[in-house]
Amino acid sequence: MKVACKIWLDNKGKAFGEGPCELLKRVGKSHSLHQAAGEMGMSYSKAWKLIRTMEKRLGVSLLARKIGGNSGGGSQLTAEAKDLVDRYERFRRDADRAVEELFQRHFGDL
Amino acid sequence: MKVACKIWLDNKGKAFGEGPCELLKRVGKSHSLHQAAGEMGMSYSKAWKLIRTMEKRLGVSLLARKIGGNSGGGSQLTAEAKDLVDRYERFRRDADRAVEELFQRHFGDL
Repeated sequence: MKVACKIWLDNKGKAFGEGPCELLKRVGKSHSLHQAAGEMGMSYSKAWKLIRTMEKRLGVSLLARKIGGNSGGGSQLTAEAKDLVDRYERFRRDADRAVEELFQRHFGDL
Repeated sequence: MKVACKIWLDNKGKAFGEGPCELLKRVGKSHSLHQAAGEMGMSYSKAWKLIRTMEKRLGVSLLARKIGGNSGGGSQLTAEAKDLVDRYERFRRDADRAVEELFQRHFGDL
């Protein structure tokens, strides 16, 4: 028996969680929302809507358009998006550890 | 901004969580799976399948058939089911508190 959990930020609806965090991290690497969405088996339009919904609920911009350059432009993470990814990952590590410890305390003998 | 979470026990698939806990508590009060399911807007057959799946994954019986009596029989919780409901509720209270504290620590300034 194991414990599993999903944890998300909520502001009148899901504002940020594991899926969005993964998507942003992939955009940060590939500088392409199209590629990041594809890697996660998500359509570009779904990924785009997800980003817009999060931006609205979080009240910050997450993606900045990079125009031109060698790669012909693309998307990059705003400072706020990078900060959010870092915080969420630290928060998740701590929360997963706390939940696991409490699971052992309450169900360890099962 | 708030934090929200779902926490469940897993044994090669969801074995117990918030919905099942609610269902069992309602069966414990009404002694009727039919009524408990209805109160949660769930079909009887879906509730029955959910109970059977949990019993398989948990490896314990959750409902005992009460035959006859004034009420004409019905379902009651096994000792294992009552123990599980109690543990899960205590676990959830502790886990929700821990997650909330960590959320404040990591996102309190947002």
